[in-house]
Amino acid sequence: MKLASLKHGRDGRLVIVSRDLTRATDAFPVVATLQAALDDWERLSPRLADLAEQLEIGSVPSFRFHEHHCASPLPRAYQWADGSAYVNHVALVRQARGVEMPPSFWTDPLMYQGGSDSFLGPRDPITLPDEAHGIDFEGEVAVITDDVPMGVTPAAARGLIRLVMIANDVSLRNLIPGELGKGFGFFQSKSSSAFSPVAVTPDELGTAWQDGKLSRPLLAFFNGEPFGKPDAGVDMTFDFGTLIAHAARTRPLVAGTVIGSGTVSNRDADGGPGRPIAEDGLGYVCIAELRTVETIRNGEPKTPFMRFGDAVRIEMKDAKGHSIFGAIDQIVRKHHP
Amino acid sequence: MKLASLKHGRDGRLVIVSRDLTRATDAFPVVATLQAALDDWERLSPRLADLAEQLEIGSVPSFRFHEHHCASPLPRAYQWADGSAYVNHVALVRQARGVEMPPSFWTDPLMYQGGSDSFLGPRDPITLPDEAHGIDFEGEVAVITDDVPMGVTPAAARGLIRLVMIANDVSLRNLIPGELGKGFGFFQSKSSSAFSPVAVTPDELGTAWQDGKLSRPLLAFFNGEPFGKPDAGVDMTFDFGTLIAHAARTRPLVAGTVIGSGTVSNRDADGGPGRPIAEDGLGYVCIAELRTVETIRNGEPKTPFMRFGDAVRIEMKDAKGHSIFGAIDQIVRKHHP
Repeated sequence: MKLASLKHGRDGRLVIVSRDLTRATDAFPVVATLQAALDDWERLSPRLADLAEQLEIGSVPSFRFHEHHCASPLPRAYQWADGSAYVNHVALVRQARGVEMPPSFWTDPLMYQGGSDSFLGPRDPITLPDEAHGIDFEGEVAVITDDVPMGVTPAAARGLIRLVMIANDVSLRNLIPGELGKGFGFFQSKSSSAFSPVAVTPDELGTAWQDGKLSRPLLAFFNGEPFGKPDAGVDMTFDFGTLIAHAARTRPLVAGTVIGSGTVSNRDADGGPGRPIAEDGLGYVCIAELRTVETIRNGEPKTPFMRFGDAVRIEMKDAKGHSIFGAIDQIVRKHHP
Repeated sequence: MKLASLKHGRDGRLVIVSRDLTRATDAFPVVATLQAALDDWERLSPRLADLAEQLEIGSVPSFRFHEHHCASPLPRAYQWADGSAYVNHVALVRQARGVEMPPSFWTDPLMYQGGSDSFLGPRDPITLPDEAHGIDFEGEVAVITDDVPMGVTPAAARGLIRLVMIANDVSLRNLIPGELGKGFGFFQSKSSSAFSPVAVTPDELGTAWQDGKLSRPLLAFFNGEPFGKPDAGVDMTFDFGTLIAHAARTRPLVAGTVIGSGTVSNRDADGGPGRPIAEDGLGYVCIAELRTVETIRNGEPKTPFMRFGDAVRIEMKDAKGHSIFGAIDQIVRKHHP
């Protein structure tokens, strides 16, 4: 089943989307919003799945689905907790900064609490006050959970994943060192994130979804040019079950919690940092990682962060080349208060 | 106007509470939940205020108000961002840990993104897995905002404060050094927070509310004994307008955002750390601060953190001795998964 929230009010208008993302039907006869569906998933999801089957065979009224009419599947959420499951990414960034990475990072997930109140729609501009903040995108996989009890095991947590999405976790790189130096983690350096037009149930992903990991390349394009295609199932040190269990160690998580994978990142075949697309590598799904590789190679970064007018597109396709989640496609714009 | 959410479903049942906290009337004829009221505050709040006036004069049906029937005013919220406005508290804790505090802490607010999906009710037990985590309470003042635009000024932000509460920001002290050492801020070390039974509009606070600060002693009791009574209007380096503006520098805040003051803390009259209640001081609204003073004086802390069965009560009274928000009163219990 594929679900989307068309822009409407604060929580969107829940629609069921056809597998090929061409048509949609209103979920309203069952439930009005995605959060309301998640609040009562056990009872409502079979009825939504029925509607989805009827949509596929054309036995319910439907309309053309346009990704640019979408808000994020949860336009506002009660929680957004973002892990750093691709430890390779963290190791690289630290290497470039000349900071040692504690070995515990390979066994104890890194996770930050993000702002969840004002997600951007997948085609919304990223409006920000200042280019000098070092605007970057971060391509991620994200899941939406059901209610999760405190102390859940990773195995049990995997069974509480209701929906899967992809994400653009916008980061203001030049604000990060100052904020992390203060010791309380990210705040201003993480502006509003965006999620894919469509959220899908794990069963839609077939064999690509296994053991809490999604094994497909995550495709990033910067100003229309291919920028990265790392496989989200490779080098993911912590699966989503482990990330959820980490988040729920000392408190329960409420249905509708969004858990992120952190920036997807693959090593090169030789074990070193991944090579750029231009060198037939898998590239990167954030600019920072390319800058890191440039720094390791040449002593300094060459590629600038995003400027007003720059565009990023993040997408994932199935084995047949069909878009699974629809595309995040955003332009950076200057915010005028 | 005083508002509370009686326990009911995921978002509570909004009631209007009399000034003396003895009686309540359903807000249902106007709006069912506090979040829904905040989503449309300009239109709905005058109608809630009318009901509140009718409740005071006895012209609407009412019932006995019991604080222990309450959830937190927002049982789940889209955002909980907690500042450290009482820099004195931060300076003290750092002094005891032998870590220098950067001078910028006096001019640039420290703030962390907290989990907002699963707030505890004001009389709910604090269930946690392990005493060894160093369970502590933190008495704070908190506000709930309307929609806040990105880049708001502190002065404009003050005008967007819709409700005021007090809070218990439960902290797991022994998990903090490890988490802050990882660089991504608090996560497991901040379990679910609790808020007062009642949230009040700033106008209810009279002259105690001025320039985004609430000037009344915050009263903490540990196992029935007075533990602290620092004045929340004293030594507050950053007023709530400044904290909100900090939170909204690179993203908008959605109506229903909860902003915390951080642990209220007053210096002693001689400029040194506050003295314990037992020495006729103002005491503390968290155990960590007492332990800090013990460490500064004797080289090591003496007072243990909370154990299963221990109780904390946090309250604030007006000049006539009436409870303003009702009391947070919680017992620590072992969580059994």
